[in-house]
Order: sequence, then C-alpha cells, then structure tokens
Amino acid sequence: MSDYRAMWKGLGLDLEAHDALLSYLGDAYTSIFLSQRNRPEGMKYFDFVMSEVHGLRIKELLDAKAEGRKVVGSYCTFVPEELILAVDGISVGLCTGGDFATELVDQVLPRNTCSLIKSAFGFKLGKVCPYVEACDLVVGENTCDGKKKAYEILRQFIPSLYVIDLPQMKTEAGKQLMRTEYQRFALKLEEVTGRKLEAKKLEAAIATVNGKRAALKRMAALRSASPAPISGLDALLISQISFYDDPVRFTGSLNALCDELEARVQAGQGVFPSAHPRIVVSGCPMAVPNWKIPAIVESCGAVIVGEEGCVGERSTRWLTPETGRTVEEMIGLLVERYLNIDCAVFTPNPSRLDYVREITHGRRADGVIHYAIQFCQPYQMEAGPVLASLESASIPTLRIDTDYSQEDVGQIRTRVEAFVERLRA
Amino acid sequence: MSDYRAMWKGLGLDLEAHDALLSYLGDAYTSIFLSQRNRPEGMKYFDFVMSEVHGLRIKELLDAKAEGRKVVGSYCTFVPEELILAVDGISVGLCTGGDFATELVDQVLPRNTCSLIKSAFGFKLGKVCPYVEACDLVVGENTCDGKKKAYEILRQFIPSLYVIDLPQMKTEAGKQLMRTEYQRFALKLEEVTGRKLEAKKLEAAIATVNGKRAALKRMAALRSASPAPISGLDALLISQISFYDDPVRFTGSLNALCDELEARVQAGQGVFPSAHPRIVVSGCPMAVPNWKIPAIVESCGAVIVGEEGCVGERSTRWLTPETGRTVEEMIGLLVERYLNIDCAVFTPNPSRLDYVREITHGRRADGVIHYAIQFCQPYQMEAGPVLASLESASIPTLRIDTDYSQEDVGQIRTRVEAFVERLRA
Repeated sequence: MSDYRAMWKGLGLDLEAHDALLSYLGDAYTSIFLSQRNRPEGMKYFDFVMSEVHGLRIKELLDAKAEGRKVVGSYCTFVPEELILAVDGISVGLCTGGDFATELVDQVLPRNTCSLIKSAFGFKLGKVCPYVEACDLVVGENTCDGKKKAYEILRQFIPSLYVIDLPQMKTEAGKQLMRTEYQRFALKLEEVTGRKLEAKKLEAAIATVNGKRAALKRMAALRSASPAPISGLDALLISQISFYDDPVRFTGSLNALCDELEARVQAGQGVFPSAHPRIVVSGCPMAVPNWKIPAIVESCGAVIVGEEGCVGERSTRWLTPETGRTVEEMIGLLVERYLNIDCAVFTPNPSRLDYVREITHGRRADGVIHYAIQFCQPYQMEAGPVLASLESASIPTLRIDTDYSQEDVGQIRTRVEAFVERLRA
Repeated sequence: MSDYRAMWKGLGLDLEAHDALLSYLGDAYTSIFLSQRNRPEGMKYFDFVMSEVHGLRIKELLDAKAEGRKVVGSYCTFVPEELILAVDGISVGLCTGGDFATELVDQVLPRNTCSLIKSAFGFKLGKVCPYVEACDLVVGENTCDGKKKAYEILRQFIPSLYVIDLPQMKTEAGKQLMRTEYQRFALKLEEVTGRKLEAKKLEAAIATVNGKRAALKRMAALRSASPAPISGLDALLISQISFYDDPVRFTGSLNALCDELEARVQAGQGVFPSAHPRIVVSGCPMAVPNWKIPAIVESCGAVIVGEEGCVGERSTRWLTPETGRTVEEMIGLLVERYLNIDCAVFTPNPSRLDYVREITHGRRADGVIHYAIQFCQPYQMEAGPVLASLESASIPTLRIDTDYSQEDVGQIRTRVEAFVERLRA
C-alpha cells in the first residue's frame, strides 16, 4: 500500500479523504462480499481486483500512459469502448456509487439531482478518484437531462471533458445523428491518442469487447439454474469490474469462473438453498460501491438471478456483428449495436418491458424489484409501465426508489422482507 | 354561461369539478388582475378573453370544427404553429398552471414530477379542460425527460397524441433531425385535416405568426421605459393568451394596446411609480393560472419588466424570414427559427445566458429572479450558470424554486420583500 501513496499523491488525490474512502470500501467489502457462503473459487480473482481497485489497476494505467497509451474515462454504456481500444486506448468507467464531498457537490448541483450524478461530482471535487485523475480524456454523453446539463458544469472541473450527443428516439434520423456522433468521437480519439483508427485494429477491438460481453452473457445464462450457482452480489460485482478491468484478462477470468459455475449447475450446487425466492432487479445502474439493494435482498433469504440494468444485462445483451470490413462499416454496425440499448431515456422503449418479462421467465424468477435512483426521471417515469406490464403477467413486483444514503436501509429491508415472504407463499 | 353548460357537457367535462375550477379562476383573476391600478384601457380586450376562456373561445373552436377545420393542441413552443395554420388548423396551447385532480395524477406519475406536467395530466384526468377535449390532434414533443416519458403515459388518456422528436444539441445533425420531424409533422397535419400544405397558405401563416410575435416584441420593448407602462402581470397574461386566442384578432388588439402604451411612455405615465425596482424573471414557463411569482413580486413594490421564459420572450424573440417560396424552403426556415429557441433542454445553451444579461440591461432592470419549477431538471441545473453569469456582471439575483401549490407563498414573499429592499438600497 505504501508504494501507492506516492502514486495517489502524484495524481493529486486528497490522501486523507482517500484513506477514509478506502477504509469504508474495505469494511463494506468484507462485511458484504467476503462474508458470503458457498462462493465460487473463481471469485478470488475478482476479490483481488477489488482489493487493488485503487492500487495495482491504477499502476497499470500509469504504466500504460508512460508507454504512450491514453486513458479514456466514461460515464455511460453508450460510449463505444471498441473505438477506444482500437486506438490503443484504455477504457475505464467513471460512474460511482457512493456519496462523497456532498457539501461541495451541493454548491454546484441542485438538491434534486440523482445520487449517481452527485457521486461523479463528489469523487472529482473530493479528489478521491484515481481513475478520473488518470484520464487523458473524459467522455460524457447526452442521455438524461441530469447528466446532459451536469456535464456543462463538470467541464469547469474536468477540462478534457468531451460529450457525445445522442438521439431520443430510435428513428432513422436518430440513427443518423448517432452515426455522426460516433464518427466525430473517432476523430477525437485519433486526435487525443495520435493514432489512426485502422480497420484491423477496430476489428480486433470489436472481437475483444464481444468476448467480454459473451462471457458476461454466459454468466447471466448460468443464473437460470436452480439453485443459482452465484449470488446476485457477486454477479453485480463482476459487472461492475467489467467497466475498468483489462478486458482480455477479465474475460479469461470470467470464463474460468463460468466453467466452475457450469460444474456447480451440473452438480446441483448453489449459493443458497433452492427454496430461496428468485428475484430479478430492473432499473437504474448500480456502480461501485452501490451494493445496497442486493445486500439487503440476499440477506433477506432471496437470491437475485438477473440485473436488467446498465451495470448488468442492458449493456451486454447485444454483441456487434463481426462482419464489417471497413472502419465506416464497423462504425455503422457499432451504431446499430449501441442503439439497441434500451435505456429509459429513449421514447418509446418497449424492448425493455419485453426483456424484463423475458428474463423473469427465463431465470425462473418469482418476482421483480424495480430499482430507481431518486430524481432519475427516465427510470422513475418508466417504472409505472414496467410494473404494470409485469403485473398484467401476474409477476409480483416491488418498487424501490432510493438514493446512495444508508438512512432508508431499515425501511427498505422491511419492505423487502415482506416481498420475499409474499414470494415464498 | 348557461349556454355553455351543454357545450361543456358535450365535451365530456366533469361539470361539478369544472364549476369549481371556474370559480377559483374567477376569484383569482379578480383579486390578482382586476385589483391592479393604472391598467391600460387596452387590457379590457384581454380581460374579456380571459372571462370567456372556457366559453366563447371554446364555442369558436367548436364552430370552426363544425365547418370542417381541425383543432390542434400542443404543450410547447417547439410545435410550429405556422404549419397548423397553413392547413386551416387552429392552434391552442394546452399547458396549464394549476394543480388539479392530484390524487388521480399521483397514480400515474412519480411524485418527483414537475407541476407543469402534473397539471397537464390533472386537467385531462379531472375532465376540466375544454381545450384538450376539443382537440382533433394533440402534439407533444421530446424536450425534457419529464415530458418525453410522460407522453408515453398520457397516450393512454389521449389517443390522438402525436409526438415530435427534437435534438438535444444545435448541431448540423440535430438540425437535420428537426427538419425530418417538422416534415413528418406536416404530413401528419395533412392527414388529420385532409388538406394539402400549400406554399401560399404557409407563406400567409408565417406572416400571421410573425405579426403576432412582432406585436409581442413591440410590447416587450415598450417595457424598457421608466416608469413601466404595463405591469408584469398584464404582460404575462397577454403572453399566456397568445397561445390560444385567434392570432389575427389577438395581434390587432395587442397592437392597439401598444399604441396606448406608446402614448403612456411619451407622457411619462406608468403603472407604478418610477422608483419601483425593476425586475426581470428568467426561467420556466408560467401557464394560466400560474400567476404566483408576478403576483407576489408586484405586490411587494417592484415591477416586472421582462419574462425570459417560454411564456414570454423566449418563444417570440425570433421571427421567421419571409423569404421562402417553396414549402420545403419555408420548412427549412422554420427549423432555423425554432432551433434558435434557447430552452434549457439544449446543451450547451449559451444564448440564454447572453439574453438574460441583455434584457436586464436593455430594460434597465435592477435585478433578476430565476424561477424554476421544482423537479424541472434542465432549468434547475441551468440556474447555477445563469445566476453566476449575472452575478459576475454585478446584477443582483434571487433564485426561486417552487411548484404550483400556495403553501410556500408566505416564505417566497418574505424572500422577495428582502430582495426588493436590496434593489432599493
């Protein structure tokens, strides 16, 4: 650890505040993750990655930078990682799941701002995020109003901030706009990295990212088994790690874990007894260290068997066809691929409703928890139609609107306990 | 009035609830508007229009419908009225400024929804809006997340709802998207009205709407005089009426009022003593009967001399060049014109900041009140940059975030009184 202090200092972190954050993270990780029973052996890799989240991985980034590679941070699954990898960039997710430096954040953002956005500001303003400090380019995107307008303010604190515009409807005109924007982003990446976006490299990058997503899909499919071979907490953790780990190493480790999960399934082994009610969680993304809902659910005698969220299946369901030969063709295929993502910012957004029902049946889930971050208008608005669609299919639902604070944990626990009781009946 | 009851019943209104609304409106109008001193004579027309807002004007709409014309309602200034007029349609604004049927609204919308959206639902669900019931086509638009997602829900209650997509940035790709959408809207209007969009008719419609906006700009400019020749309340009322009155009759009446205001200015006459602090209000739209902020401000010894809002100068600042000859050319010019509108849903949105400073100087205002409806993320987020820009120009500011309830009137009054005192000092 002592090796890293100089590194953190060099990145401009507030060492005291950072120590406090790491201490909180370590304690939370121990009590929430390491206390779980029947964890697969393959989780050791991910435990190690988490233990080095601000250490070894940051050192890797800095070593790569020393070799001339660039680090590109992003806040959303609409930022095409493939383009970043194709110019030898390193892609890291910057969304954060914890309140930090709230008094500084409240000076620049309205109180009615969702925790996810506030947290991104808090980690930057509080100087505790080595990822954002290591970035050569930070990429935002016009998804929701909150992020779109917050980026205008964040630019004061992150001069390298670049924003990708997005359409609001999946029309032909919307697709054209997105294609224009992905092409503009490719030019920006060429400028920042000083490397040309070449077809061969982009082809390889698409294959790499497809490999990562295929491994995540493989894990998701294995959760259909009863008993579930992996906890919802661990599955979420793996999705969270997918945003910042080296993609090839990550894919290898995840496939090794999936081999183990397959063996478990064949042996009828699971993390919890098969009588545990099975739950799908649908809604807003959960970034590290936002483990609040799964920690509550899985300590109430239920198991989560799917996350319909951006940190989860919404960002990995679709692979990019590997049929493009020219850069332009491949960008076109990436646009098609990313425009599938059924984030609630799109109107209408019917495929999300279909998919929630689909995985509920496919994973043999007994019920669905709709999770929305307070003040996230797109997901809070879409919760009504999602829940109505599930209820019309006689699927029990529970709606939780919350933030990153721990104040409502007791209240949520009571509601989850009652819901789990209902599913058991 | 008794004549109208059959009409309202025919439109499916809830007569009892509607009576309660009219009674509230009448009382509010009397106490807020008719109690004002030194009102121009020309306000009599607008008082009459308001007194017949659910009566004569609705009868006019129904008479026009009987002659085969169509009524098109909209919720936003991005819906191009010119296209509606060009197919002999009647354009009416449907935004509403009062809480209604809140218990029904809370069943379909999240609590964290702004009052404007809730009110649109409340007037529909509570069956008290003869305008929406008279519409052959209701047009929404993808501006903010709240409206975009709420339209998906509103469609259940308004089957004729049609939504215009909009870009989030004023780029070339954004303009292309908007052009595609305006062309699609033109086709929809042709389908609904059964009339062809002809160049001659569109030319005339552009001239009609330009005439209306020019008259509103004329009124706005006259408010630069000290003492102000018209109250902020009356000026706001006129802007509100501009959304549903017959445009030609409205323009004539407003120009007659402006003649009177010009004479007042020349004679040095005003509505308040010239010592009254002068205030610009910037922010969210104020739809009928949302008179809360100007009623408070102008009862605290200040006068409002400009509204930087969609019910106000943001929707009227730009005229459409009358140089187009073909329908396609004119639609292109309309796209250019409407894309000027500096609503906070756009990113970035620098011209709004410029304009607030500009009218503050031009109207010789002493300070600016930034008004945002609670949970309106775009304006609440943009409030920070707007206020910072004003303060850096040494312009005193007051930020008010509120809703349509009357619960915070006392608290707001206290803050406004202190602000007016500060401006007097």
